[in-house]
Amino acid sequence: MSNQKTELSDLGEFGLIKHLTNKIELQNESSIKGVGDDCAVLNYPNKRVVVTTDMLTEGIHFNLMYVPLKHLGYKSIAVNLSDVYAMNATPKQVTVSIALSSKFSLEAIEQLYQGIHLACQHYGVDLVGGDTTSSLTGLTISVTAIGEVDEDKVVYRCGAKPTNLLCVSGDLGGAYMGLQLLERENEVFKVDPNMKPQFKEYDYLLERQLKPEPRRDVIKMLADNNVCPTSMIDISDGLSSEILHLCEESSVGCRLYEDKIPYHPNTQDLAQEMNINPIVAALNGGEDYELLFTVDIKDYERIKNNPLITVLGHITEAQEGANLVTAGMGKFIPLEAQGWNPMMNKIEE
Amino acid sequence: MSNQKTELSDLGEFGLIKHLTNKIELQNESSIKGVGDDCAVLNYPNKRVVVTTDMLTEGIHFNLMYVPLKHLGYKSIAVNLSDVYAMNATPKQVTVSIALSSKFSLEAIEQLYQGIHLACQHYGVDLVGGDTTSSLTGLTISVTAIGEVDEDKVVYRCGAKPTNLLCVSGDLGGAYMGLQLLERENEVFKVDPNMKPQFKEYDYLLERQLKPEPRRDVIKMLADNNVCPTSMIDISDGLSSEILHLCEESSVGCRLYEDKIPYHPNTQDLAQEMNINPIVAALNGGEDYELLFTVDIKDYERIKNNPLITVLGHITEAQEGANLVTAGMGKFIPLEAQGWNPMMNKIEE
Repeated sequence: MSNQKTELSDLGEFGLIKHLTNKIELQNESSIKGVGDDCAVLNYPNKRVVVTTDMLTEGIHFNLMYVPLKHLGYKSIAVNLSDVYAMNATPKQVTVSIALSSKFSLEAIEQLYQGIHLACQHYGVDLVGGDTTSSLTGLTISVTAIGEVDEDKVVYRCGAKPTNLLCVSGDLGGAYMGLQLLERENEVFKVDPNMKPQFKEYDYLLERQLKPEPRRDVIKMLADNNVCPTSMIDISDGLSSEILHLCEESSVGCRLYEDKIPYHPNTQDLAQEMNINPIVAALNGGEDYELLFTVDIKDYERIKNNPLITVLGHITEAQEGANLVTAGMGKFIPLEAQGWNPMMNKIEE
Repeated sequence: MSNQKTELSDLGEFGLIKHLTNKIELQNESSIKGVGDDCAVLNYPNKRVVVTTDMLTEGIHFNLMYVPLKHLGYKSIAVNLSDVYAMNATPKQVTVSIALSSKFSLEAIEQLYQGIHLACQHYGVDLVGGDTTSSLTGLTISVTAIGEVDEDKVVYRCGAKPTNLLCVSGDLGGAYMGLQLLERENEVFKVDPNMKPQFKEYDYLLERQLKPEPRRDVIKMLADNNVCPTSMIDISDGLSSEILHLCEESSVGCRLYEDKIPYHPNTQDLAQEMNINPIVAALNGGEDYELLFTVDIKDYERIKNNPLITVLGHITEAQEGANLVTAGMGKFIPLEAQGWNPMMNKIEE
């Protein structure tokens, strides 16, 4: 089976769409009509509807040399669901559009859709529409996710207030280190195709890069503990960039304590092996898809010692700026969305 | 101004998004939050929500040699709104994702967004989100449109019944002939760049190809006349393909009368000049973005002689098939979604 290649041109566009979508069973009551008409039809009485969209392009967001298509499909859904959870909402529907060149066979696209279907199934989301078209070169995937939330429960980026605690779920920098590992082994492979990749004990980092999981569990835990964040964002571009978004949208500053940033042991080990400061991976690496959020200080008792989250610091007045407080000297270093790498050298001095 | 070129890399992704979206004012009550958070937030009490998405890729759906970017932006919105109207719904929000290579300057992308904003404004739609990313080559545009409709007014493809009248808005084949004209002049230009394009009196055909308008007016007219179609689809792939979709989804057949197909005089003139049978342009050309729909025969009095629509034929039992009835001989020719061109030769015999 895996070596079989069916040309997409034999199926035609409608044949391909039918082939890829004919097993879909709608799971959500709000999904009235899915694939197969001019539009999907949804029903959301007395709820707020949230919508997000992300586009992934070959050579920029993924390299098919080391990203399996099934993982790519899963990730393309996961990164959009992460945005929905970051509104404190529950994802319900997705649409998926793909543009692909003639180098892809039906079997390749089936693998992509296997990953898409797996993610939809795992997160209880209905695939309700999309578009399948040609491209002159490469693969582009565009996903739109739709979710629902009670109107008094929507969490925006703009609600952080001074004294609020700045929190993050999970650990940071793992996806970045996973990418470094994949790129290193890809270089080795290019030199000697007989070399087997040396991933050793770093499976966790590969998983973080290739198959990120949006933090549905964190949203559920917060709701179970009656904690509603005052602001929230998901970490796609790196902690530094996301903190600056929250501070800018909320018109506040913050103090982020370097020694509070949570790392997985694998992240620290590989960073040392590759001579990378792990804080670079956390602040600028991105793709961790953890949730960064602020809570009222009164909620501290409800979240302290919770294994899913870490308190990184706190929100300040805007004029204090957004600062990293270094571990050793307690120096204040302004956070920057880009160009942070040069500063790392200063810290290391 | 028009010769100024600002490199996109100088702005960065967030700078570009801000630059392109900072003038957006939300027009619809249901648009609670637009660009600038993880998701847009919408509110639709007691309505059905419809969602559609379309992706346009350079070299497949458009050729930047002869499609101005402003028109491309307008069209990318228009084709999605056409799908929303085809559900008998009113479009309210769009999200726009673009992937672009480094060959595009800020000024080029501004032109694209001018067209996008113009279409949004004209149709009262809010741009509430999107994604702006890089690509290795060319331009890809992915638009998702969201609309609302009373739950008893949704029109699917599946409701056509035998004896229903088969109707179409406007005229057909114009967009296809406009494309032939653009391609012909582009070939001339390639041979001699000093040649001025010879579009003569064919402005209408260029407009049909470059700046299609979704038929909001037809939806309004039908509602004003208390006519609710039993099934509906928009014509993006050609009349033949769309009729077959309606028949398949509704499990019916149909008779389409060749001499009822409406053409603009320019379509007929250019078809003659270029030695193309205009029925090929109508049946297989596509991109006309007219509405194809069926109505109960009781509604005939309410639609007859309406200048916006033409009755093309009627729905039959499924076993009769979907047939074109030729003008001269009254011969029945089965409609085919693809490969219709060879049949045209038979008709001409």
